[in-house]
Amino acid sequence: MDSSKIKKILESVKAGKLSIQAAFNDLKHLPYEDLHFAKIDHHRYLRQGIPEVIFAEGKKIEDVLRVAGSIYVKNKKLLITRASKKIYNRLNIKDAKFYPMSGTISVNKEKKKTGYVLILSAGTSDIPVAEEASVTASFLGSRVETVYDVGVAGIHRLMDTKKSLISAKVIVVVAGMEGALPSVVGGLVDKPIIGVPTSVGYGTSLGGLTALFAMLNSCVPGIAVMNIDNGFGAGCLAHKINVL
Amino acid sequence: MDSSKIKKILESVKAGKLSIQAAFNDLKHLPYEDLHFAKIDHHRYLRQGIPEVIFAEGKKIEDVLRVAGSIYVKNKKLLITRASKKIYNRLNIKDAKFYPMSGTISVNKEKKKTGYVLILSAGTSDIPVAEEASVTASFLGSRVETVYDVGVAGIHRLMDTKKSLISAKVIVVVAGMEGALPSVVGGLVDKPIIGVPTSVGYGTSLGGLTALFAMLNSCVPGIAVMNIDNGFGAGCLAHKINVL
Amino acid sequence: MDSSKIKKILESVKAGKLSIQAAFNDLKHLPYEDLHFAKIDHHRYLRQGIPEVIFAEGKKIEDVLRVAGSIYVKNKKLLITRASKKIYNRLNIKDAKFYPMSGTISVNKEKKKTGYVLILSAGTSDIPVAEEASVTASFLGSRVETVYDVGVAGIHRLMDTKKSLISAKVIVVVAGMEGALPSVVGGLVDKPIIGVPTSVGYGTSLGGLTALFAMLNSCVPGIAVMNIDNGFGAGCLAHKINVL
Amino acid sequence: MDSSKIKKILESVKAGKLSIQAAFNDLKHLPYEDLHFAKIDHHRYLRQGIPEVIFAEGKKIEDVLRVAGSIYVKNKKLLITRASKKIYNRLNIKDAKFYPMSGTISVNKEKKKTGYVLILSAGTSDIPVAEEASVTASFLGSRVETVYDVGVAGIHRLMDTKKSLISAKVIVVVAGMEGALPSVVGGLVDKPIIGVPTSVGYGTSLGGLTALFAMLNSCVPGIAVMNIDNGFGAGCLAHKINVL
Amino acid sequence: MDSSKIKKILESVKAGKLSIQAAFNDLKHLPYEDLHFAKIDHHRYLRQGIPEVIFAEGKKIEDVLRVAGSIYVKNKKLLITRASKKIYNRLNIKDAKFYPMSGTISVNKEKKKTGYVLILSAGTSDIPVAEEASVTASFLGSRVETVYDVGVAGIHRLMDTKKSLISAKVIVVVAGMEGALPSVVGGLVDKPIIGVPTSVGYGTSLGGLTALFAMLNSCVPGIAVMNIDNGFGAGCLAHKINVL
Amino acid sequence: MDSSKIKKILESVKAGKLSIQAAFNDLKHLPYEDLHFAKIDHHRYLRQGIPEVIFAEGKKIEDVLRVAGSIYVKNKKLLITRASKKIYNRLNIKDAKFYPMSGTISVNKEKKKTGYVLILSAGTSDIPVAEEASVTASFLGSRVETVYDVGVAGIHRLMDTKKSLISAKVIVVVAGMEGALPSVVGGLVDKPIIGVPTSVGYGTSLGGLTALFAMLNSCVPGIAVMNIDNGFGAGCLAHKINVL
Amino acid sequence: MDSSKIKKILESVKAGKLSIQAAFNDLKHLPYEDLHFAKIDHHRYLRQGIPEVIFAEGKKIEDVLRVAGSIYVKNKKLLITRASKKIYNRLNIKDAKFYPMSGTISVNKEKKKTGYVLILSAGTSDIPVAEEASVTASFLGSRVETVYDVGVAGIHRLMDTKKSLISAKVIVVVAGMEGALPSVVGGLVDKPIIGVPTSVGYGTSLGGLTALFAMLNSCVPGIAVMNIDNGFGAGCLAHKINVL
Amino acid sequence: MDSSKIKKILESVKAGKLSIQAAFNDLKHLPYEDLHFAKIDHHRYLRQGIPEVIFAEGKKIEDVLRVAGSIYVKNKKLLITRASKKIYNRLNIKDAKFYPMSGTISVNKEKKKTGYVLILSAGTSDIPVAEEASVTASFLGSRVETVYDVGVAGIHRLMDTKKSLISAKVIVVVAGMEGALPSVVGGLVDKPIIGVPTSVGYGTSLGGLTALFAMLNSCVPGIAVMNIDNGFGAGCLAHKINVL
Repeated sequence: MDSSKIKKILESVKAGKLSIQAAFNDLKHLPYEDLHFAKIDHHRYLRQGIPEVIFAEGKKIEDVLRVAGSIYVKNKKLLITRASKKIYNRLNIKDAKFYPMSGTISVNKEKKKTGYVLILSAGTSDIPVAEEASVTASFLGSRVETVYDVGVAGIHRLMDTKKSLISAKVIVVVAGMEGALPSVVGGLVDKPIIGVPTSVGYGTSLGGLTALFAMLNSCVPGIAVMNIDNGFGAGCLAHKINVL
Repeated sequence: MDSSKIKKILESVKAGKLSIQAAFNDLKHLPYEDLHFAKIDHHRYLRQGIPEVIFAEGKKIEDVLRVAGSIYVKNKKLLITRASKKIYNRLNIKDAKFYPMSGTISVNKEKKKTGYVLILSAGTSDIPVAEEASVTASFLGSRVETVYDVGVAGIHRLMDTKKSLISAKVIVVVAGMEGALPSVVGGLVDKPIIGVPTSVGYGTSLGGLTALFAMLNSCVPGIAVMNIDNGFGAGCLAHKINVL
Repeated sequence: MDSSKIKKILESVKAGKLSIQAAFNDLKHLPYEDLHFAKIDHHRYLRQGIPEVIFAEGKKIEDVLRVAGSIYVKNKKLLITRASKKIYNRLNIKDAKFYPMSGTISVNKEKKKTGYVLILSAGTSDIPVAEEASVTASFLGSRVETVYDVGVAGIHRLMDTKKSLISAKVIVVVAGMEGALPSVVGGLVDKPIIGVPTSVGYGTSLGGLTALFAMLNSCVPGIAVMNIDNGFGAGCLAHKINVL
Repeated sequence: MDSSKIKKILESVKAGKLSIQAAFNDLKHLPYEDLHFAKIDHHRYLRQGIPEVIFAEGKKIEDVLRVAGSIYVKNKKLLITRASKKIYNRLNIKDAKFYPMSGTISVNKEKKKTGYVLILSAGTSDIPVAEEASVTASFLGSRVETVYDVGVAGIHRLMDTKKSLISAKVIVVVAGMEGALPSVVGGLVDKPIIGVPTSVGYGTSLGGLTALFAMLNSCVPGIAVMNIDNGFGAGCLAHKINVL
Repeated sequence: MDSSKIKKILESVKAGKLSIQAAFNDLKHLPYEDLHFAKIDHHRYLRQGIPEVIFAEGKKIEDVLRVAGSIYVKNKKLLITRASKKIYNRLNIKDAKFYPMSGTISVNKEKKKTGYVLILSAGTSDIPVAEEASVTASFLGSRVETVYDVGVAGIHRLMDTKKSLISAKVIVVVAGMEGALPSVVGGLVDKPIIGVPTSVGYGTSLGGLTALFAMLNSCVPGIAVMNIDNGFGAGCLAHKINVL
Repeated sequence: MDSSKIKKILESVKAGKLSIQAAFNDLKHLPYEDLHFAKIDHHRYLRQGIPEVIFAEGKKIEDVLRVAGSIYVKNKKLLITRASKKIYNRLNIKDAKFYPMSGTISVNKEKKKTGYVLILSAGTSDIPVAEEASVTASFLGSRVETVYDVGVAGIHRLMDTKKSLISAKVIVVVAGMEGALPSVVGGLVDKPIIGVPTSVGYGTSLGGLTALFAMLNSCVPGIAVMNIDNGFGAGCLAHKINVL
Repeated sequence: MDSSKIKKILESVKAGKLSIQAAFNDLKHLPYEDLHFAKIDHHRYLRQGIPEVIFAEGKKIEDVLRVAGSIYVKNKKLLITRASKKIYNRLNIKDAKFYPMSGTISVNKEKKKTGYVLILSAGTSDIPVAEEASVTASFLGSRVETVYDVGVAGIHRLMDTKKSLISAKVIVVVAGMEGALPSVVGGLVDKPIIGVPTSVGYGTSLGGLTALFAMLNSCVPGIAVMNIDNGFGAGCLAHKINVL
Repeated sequence: MDSSKIKKILESVKAGKLSIQAAFNDLKHLPYEDLHFAKIDHHRYLRQGIPEVIFAEGKKIEDVLRVAGSIYVKNKKLLITRASKKIYNRLNIKDAKFYPMSGTISVNKEKKKTGYVLILSAGTSDIPVAEEASVTASFLGSRVETVYDVGVAGIHRLMDTKKSLISAKVIVVVAGMEGALPSVVGGLVDKPIIGVPTSVGYGTSLGGLTALFAMLNSCVPGIAVMNIDNGFGAGCLAHKINVL
């Protein structure tokens, strides 16, 4: 497209249809548009089924609804994270699905899912973050399986997931408190592991910093660590790896 | 193997060659051995060409040399990180290569490399960490390309790597100080990006914590973040993703 | 039990009642079950009178009530921590007792208590955490005595407890602000001491971190330190030590 | 004024109207008044159109209204930051303008604006802080242009502002999360850049500390950094530089 | 003794041998001496075989040697922690044993050891701290067993210690980096567990704070946590519990 | 009193009215009572006009009222800090005075005040803390003068207090934000200065830690620093120094 | 230049001297070159007398000397910061001047200096950082005046600089410990003020964080704050403002 | 002096010897000199026997010696803190006394000491800081008594100092690790107490921050807290209080 545009200008110059000055004026703005290969990537991204995502927390309902409507009209797909039930209720889109634990709203009629993303949570309180990761990756087109409440205090529960652990292409491990689960999972399999620390805990859990630092210091090399409670980021990375 | 072992015991019991008590004693230790599917993974890992890696920092030279010798004899491959020139000089292994900036020693005659891992560093002071990532991924079997000194203060330098950015399967971005490079790179491409904060900087760089937190808070979703200066971990994760 | 199960399988194989393949299928899941020696411990634990404990904070009342009902039906015992009066009022269990300061609900008809756990609090504001420790240890079967408001600002008050200090098998010391009480108590007796920092204080009490760090740095060697406000953990450890 | 006062005393002494002791008593308090050159600066400042500014957050509405009235009567100009709509509604001043995103109230009929302050925000959530900076600088007499949502995740959006970047006399860059935008802008132009970190983000954004530290560690030398969310300070500094 | 002293005074008063004033003078200092029940405890402690312990770090060799000599002469037992080889070489005590990894010097001819303290270390770099705990508990009279390098990255290695885990009366778990081992061990057994975080690691290990906080936030209730690298404290507490 | 008690016992023994065993039983508890010299101090303290003080924050109104009534009945004096208007309204004590900015309630008919405590506040937002210090010191019997809003941004305002600065026996300086005022005051006078950091500020004021650390690092040697917002402590120390 | 290059290509196309494909190939790289308007700025910057600056700390002497030689040959100007005397001695450049307190090496024969940058230091220990700022701004072409040791503990010393304070166009204030000087200076004048916190101090100076946070929280609005010890950055910003 | 200067000017004006303009010129600089009442204080301070004090740490020996010589010549008194033996050896002043633990050098022939400052240290490792406080207060003219090693782990040792505790006018309490001693002392006496946290400890002692925060959070109201290891500041404050 960009290429053809440049060539068209050149041809017009050659054909004498475009003055050099006019051609120059057209071309001097091209660099920016070409830099837009990022934007073009973005378009490709859209074609791959990933429209813009709305982070609803702290935004006004009206603003969220307006942007959501605009995205849905254009893409027929929609993902809103950290949304309230209220937003969902006022969102006039059939097929929209609300995930109450994480406050995620997803609209995507496309049923085909590829690969295999396994998402584990250490405790039941970590499920909202795991759900956000799960809905995100699934929305983006990944096949997702979730196994909750397999924390290290009862290591045998984790063993039940052995088959899933071995089959998955990439594993997201969500854990708060001491954040030890990614290390234990990482000791069992050689797949890329994405650790997501959560703010679950009190006192020295420091709002999730302890779980975060624990994951960054895992004795298993190469755990990919996300920001605290960032299930959305984990879902994105898992999908990017899963579609390789 | 484990399966055949269990079946052999059962057959011996059926055949009356093994008393129930003796079979029971054999079996009661099996769980642990079966749990060893991790260990088996580890063996498979070895067969894939990834022997145990030695972290030399803070260890006695004699200990490092002894373990290194033992690993090399068994695997014909060897990776030592954070090693001194002294260790390299006393290591009696032909084909061992020493990377002085990162202090990495690598022995691996296997020349075939697969995929495409791109490793960027923001500044020249970040090169040691980038080198550790590069040598690690290469040692594990990945084809690696490195581009150094493309920090955000001169964003045009990064644009020169556009072709590499688009071609790579996974990109490792090493940056200290404000740690902004992964965000900028992540805004340009949709590949999995691994951010490695370094301890380069002074004052409020807080030994790399600032770069770390910046990467965890990237406005680009899904950057995989490593511990500070952890080039080895980045090399491992990049390779795991690269071979998918 | 597990043993008998394995032997029964072996006997069935020997007797030809079970094919080797069927026996193999049964056995291949045993490792996990055997790993369950943790679970078996857990069963033993239950037999000792310690059913699963519910941490109610942040959970929905309905969920807490449902799990509580299920535990009570099975165990005839129940411990809920960080619960509201509301939960207690809707909990339809005779003999349930509510401790309003700590929000603990305890159901345990078993009256026999063993050993001697002494629980001290530095100030009156630390009592909720001390109460949680006390109710927990008592619920688990320990004989508990509590002495409140014996902080170091009036060291003579502590001296009144001399007799209790000498008689106790293990001492829990709950303190916020500067967290000095465990050191003073530890200087007086040679029993195991469990320090519980509380979030009582303001400014540089840093939500309890100051008391926590003070206890970890006690000039008395070997104080067992808990997370901030973790009366439940202290009650568990005190009981574990008390029943040795 | 001060000068004339001193001279008048001296003249009275010379004329014998004032005893040396009385003159001494008058003069010994002068130093302080002369020290008032700061206060005189303040008066000059007022004459330049900068009356006292009210920080309304945490103050009682009545107090704010009373002080505001008094300032307005005296200066015919008024700036209130971090104010609620309620304050605006009860403020009985024609021409008062309320900026709801930042909660700024500005009264200044003077239309003439000088220089060129460019204010950029990385994301839409950073706009309130950018608006505070913008209203402040404009109130003080600077010509201000704002460009919002040009964060580094889509670097091409920033390129659209190229012309503004080159024309501005001083640039305020407002960014939360990883705070990378000042570095990127600073790599493109050689104007004084004022970085304002915002508390936008969660987890390891640490309430804005991460963006703050990132800006302080910029690889571009000489970024002027403000306290977190301090749009008012940025507006003041931008104006001070802009009027040089 | 104190009792007899008081009674003797009273008898002297009754017998008229001592004036009331003189008796009063004697008695008015008693309270303090009675408070000495702490000191008496200390004496009892000595009788139990626990003489004063020397922390050699940062002390002058001459001072350490002088105090050590004095303690040894009085108690025939001696424990010095964080000592150099130099101190050991100049210490003129037969039977003194030097533990080079932890720098502990122990002199105790008493061979009888009681109970069973199990000490685990996650990695090989954690051994110095584990050794300090081990030598301390052993010095105090506990039977100690050590198992090193059973970290969570290879959970199967821990399973090998199953028998020891079940038999021990109290378990010390030493771990750096993410500090996850106490949680995993605590999920397997119901014995009192003492977690000792170490400063092993770099970057976000924060000199051991990450391991410390992880242990304090263990999902297993009631882990007794020590200060970073405090093997001595762990040995003391383990012994106190072990002798109950 | 204690003395007379001991002598009475001795006399009874001498007179044969008390058996040695009974006397011994009486005396063996004396140490503790004698240790009570702290308590005796406390009584003396009361006689000096300082009854127990109630910190109302986080306490139930009923509890506060009950304790307050009991103290008032006994001492005819009463100080309650961090109290609500509600408590004041329900407190049935004539002459009770409520200070709404700091939430302090003071009852003390004694009008005589001694010495001279000067209390300065940097800004108007610091007044609540300054008021708490002022009411406390005054309640304890010190003559107090307060000067508010003399922060370093307008150093000339401070100069107006020159006479007070020189006359005061001890100076309390209350400041939030950058906490610079104690340094400036300390550079002007040689009286003991008590610095009280406040939580006034946002962002990097870190809830008062910045002001606290600034005061601890004052280039003026010997500033006495209090916990954040601790006006009560400052009032106590100021009074203790003032009455020397 | 870029313009002429584009026009030349267009002319060649028009003239038939360049095929459309060849012209396209030339043009498709232009965007990046045009993006180079940053680079062009950089060139202009060079023409203004500001060559690349070398940060020598942590770099090898050989590397520093090589880069320095290359810069000097090209620009006839050279600035090296954080350099050792050793580097200076081996640097074979006449007119090079070494500033030993800050370790700055400056080569710039251009004598003409413009504007007026005033640089103050609070204490004598802050002079190295002040010197770095001074040498940098002077090297870049600013007229610089320095006044050292005017800290707030003796506020009268600052008053001596009144004339300089009023005359300067921009003021750099360097201070460690409590970092109060910028606030006091900012209260006296209305010029742009650049605060540079230093790591001077111990304990709670936290390596300069306390001074940094104090400056960010100044009650004087709009202080431009630099990273800790960043005299170079302050010199750059001061110059940028000074040449406006 | 200042007074006489002003009067002399006035007299010259009256006498017609000085024109009003000339007098004005002289007087307009007076304010600053009058502001010097701080300086005058300083002179008075000198007259009271307190010359300028040298903080030698990080300064060059030559600089220290030169300033020391100059001070000594002028004042016949000299105090140097944090000095090496080397400085002492090269200091050519008879009567100079070196305190090796704290590195303090004191020269003051004045033997008369007033008041009573009691200085306690919790452990033997805290003695250097206690010694610095002691030498400082003594140098300034206070009578000082020191009692070392009375930490809270053996509270009875503190009781031995009862008489001193009651007699002292002000008490300095030096403690590292958990910093609990000031609280315990403060619970026993009603004198002003100055707490000095030390950096003694490891791990979570955080270089003294834990002791500092503990003291700031003391349950005893009004402890005056110093910066970490700041024995000098404590000595100054103790003296200021002691001479009231």
